[in-house]
Amino acid sequence: MNNNKPSLVTCLSPALLNLYDVSDSIVVIIDVFRATSTIASALYNGAKKIIPVDSVASCIMIGKETGGITAGERDGKVVEGLMHGNSPMEYNREFIEGKVLVLTTTNGTKLLHMALSKGADTIVTGSFPNLSAVCDYLVTQKKNVLLGCAAWKDRVNMEDTLFAGAIVNRVQEHFEIHCDSSLGAAALHQSLNGDIWPFIEKTTHFHRLAKYGLEEDMKFCIGEDSCNILPIYKNGELIIA
Amino acid sequence: MNNNKPSLVTCLSPALLNLYDVSDSIVVIIDVFRATSTIASALYNGAKKIIPVDSVASCIMIGKETGGITAGERDGKVVEGLMHGNSPMEYNREFIEGKVLVLTTTNGTKLLHMALSKGADTIVTGSFPNLSAVCDYLVTQKKNVLLGCAAWKDRVNMEDTLFAGAIVNRVQEHFEIHCDSSLGAAALHQSLNGDIWPFIEKTTHFHRLAKYGLEEDMKFCIGEDSCNILPIYKNGELIIA
Repeated sequence: MNNNKPSLVTCLSPALLNLYDVSDSIVVIIDVFRATSTIASALYNGAKKIIPVDSVASCIMIGKETGGITAGERDGKVVEGLMHGNSPMEYNREFIEGKVLVLTTTNGTKLLHMALSKGADTIVTGSFPNLSAVCDYLVTQKKNVLLGCAAWKDRVNMEDTLFAGAIVNRVQEHFEIHCDSSLGAAALHQSLNGDIWPFIEKTTHFHRLAKYGLEEDMKFCIGEDSCNILPIYKNGELIIA
Repeated sequence: MNNNKPSLVTCLSPALLNLYDVSDSIVVIIDVFRATSTIASALYNGAKKIIPVDSVASCIMIGKETGGITAGERDGKVVEGLMHGNSPMEYNREFIEGKVLVLTTTNGTKLLHMALSKGADTIVTGSFPNLSAVCDYLVTQKKNVLLGCAAWKDRVNMEDTLFAGAIVNRVQEHFEIHCDSSLGAAALHQSLNGDIWPFIEKTTHFHRLAKYGLEEDMKFCIGEDSCNILPIYKNGELIIA
């Protein structure tokens, strides 16, 4: 065993984050449906920066101050008072290039602010559209890692768990992993042999979003490496690392 | 869809129990390594009853009052002041028949008392040695069910998750299941094709207990139906239903 390897853990719900010390860790915020997919998409398509905020009121206020596009959702739906929703498909280059996006979501931006207030060393965001960029970054940094699943109102969800598993399966040889959540997520992801859609169709979040006709959104969110950049949080903003 | 089916959810950690209303539910306490395996073993082998308590001090006091055998662990080890440990192998018929066992453990008895204080309708305990008895009971009762994993100091563990998955795979046609934790646990259990030991050997709890030479204990705990009775909690005591 190489004791010099950094550690990697997976936290399946924001309600469990208090069990982990993140002060010397890179925290990967994971909210596959759909905040961190939207973040990858918007930055890849040229957004100047994304300001993640934890309330609708802040979103509207900061939108006014910055002239940015206000966007977000609560319970999967666009919120009254915001200009756009949380769909990664909305943020194509023609629309978003050079603009500021101010984003608030039910789970993802909340977890980001929790990690921040716990003093995380570094915060990045990940989803399947930027899987390789996240993995490459984690391997080169040689720091401890916490994979933070945004979940759904603190209930563990499978799309975020599967993305954590996808990361673990790619990077595990570079880390010491004594964490059953990482072990289970990796085994589950591996058991699906790269074809996760039929499993996704059984999840609670699929049923929630399919009611709004968002199947194409979800297919985009679980497709690998279409927006292969690394969003990193610096001075209140997400920018490309 | 049959809307008359009761619901089934899985709670992967005691720290998530507050997300669920258990007032009309059967709660299955799951602490595979080893509290609920020990409980199944002791009752199967003729223990008169088991009094689960949440502190070592209570264990010693109630042991004195009842003339019972005090037993338990903290951090996987026998506690000073208690007569016995938390090994299901200790409680053979010759030793335990007709006796009262007063038991306190790191995770399992704690979760039982949490479910009790949240007003659970019914509390039973399960592990692989009484898998079929638990499943048969849940199917015949036609009530809502929460599978409660005791976890390890609130961190999700895979042996309890796998047992929840084993239950879900057996009983799912009788329940409405809109719960990603149940879905993931069932898929993980199914992917192992009934041979869970190689996976168990990768878990954190395996490493913790193997240090104390407890491999045989763990093999007993994941063997199905060797103690096929149903422990049910009534008036402060676990007895055979």
